[in-house]
Amino acid sequence: MKAIDTIQFNEKGLVPVITQDYSTNQILMMAWMNEEAFALTLKTKKAVYFSRSRKKLWLKGEESGNYQDIVEIFTDCDQDVVLLKVNQKGGIACHTGRANCFFNKLENDQWKSVSKVIKDPKEIYG
Amino acid sequence: MKAIDTIQFNEKGLVPVITQDYSTNQILMMAWMNEEAFALTLKTKKAVYFSRSRKKLWLKGEESGNYQDIVEIFTDCDQDVVLLKVNQKGGIACHTGRANCFFNKLENDQWKSVSKVIKDPKEIYG
Repeated sequence: MKAIDTIQFNEKGLVPVITQDYSTNQILMMAWMNEEAFALTLKTKKAVYFSRSRKKLWLKGEESGNYQDIVEIFTDCDQDVVLLKVNQKGGIACHTGRANCFFNKLENDQWKSVSKVIKDPKEIYG
Repeated sequence: MKAIDTIQFNEKGLVPVITQDYSTNQILMMAWMNEEAFALTLKTKKAVYFSRSRKKLWLKGEESGNYQDIVEIFTDCDQDVVLLKVNQKGGIACHTGRANCFFNKLENDQWKSVSKVIKDPKEIYG
């Protein structure tokens, strides 16, 4: 049995994926994979997700150059979540141009943006 | 507008939640919240999830005593994922008796358990 065979994909054929910086343990983002995305991630050693909005495979960094090189891959106890530990090229994981996606911090029942935009998205994707 | 009002709950009224150890940045687990779970988490300052299998609210630690005390709460760029940074009581987040849920590591296309059971689940839940 191969590793992919024990992953519990949901009723839509997807599994949630948490992506963490290998060096700092900072959580960069959360996305989804289907079987093909997981297989391609193993093959290319770069994170490949399935974009639910665009309904297609998504090689992270294909537009921005900010690829995620895979260092380690884990699943959780139920094998229904995947964890990628990666080296983030360019130091930018978020499409907003920030280092990571989790920049809205709860303060006094409001979300406050606590990390700066490293590069204008217009420059990244323009 | 309150913080809860901008969270993007999915079509089932749920949002994925990543829970991370505040001190070590180790990812402890991933679970789900509905609106009530999020509100109770704010109110009690302990992680409260919605159990999809049991279809009910789940105060983490209610059986084991291994509560998760909330330190910080974040959402991601799309506000469709919640990140909790917590102090994990008892040092055990996983129902298998391990420190965290992500203990299956990919090696040569097989999942290998790489962290030890700290306490037998029978002792925790028995």
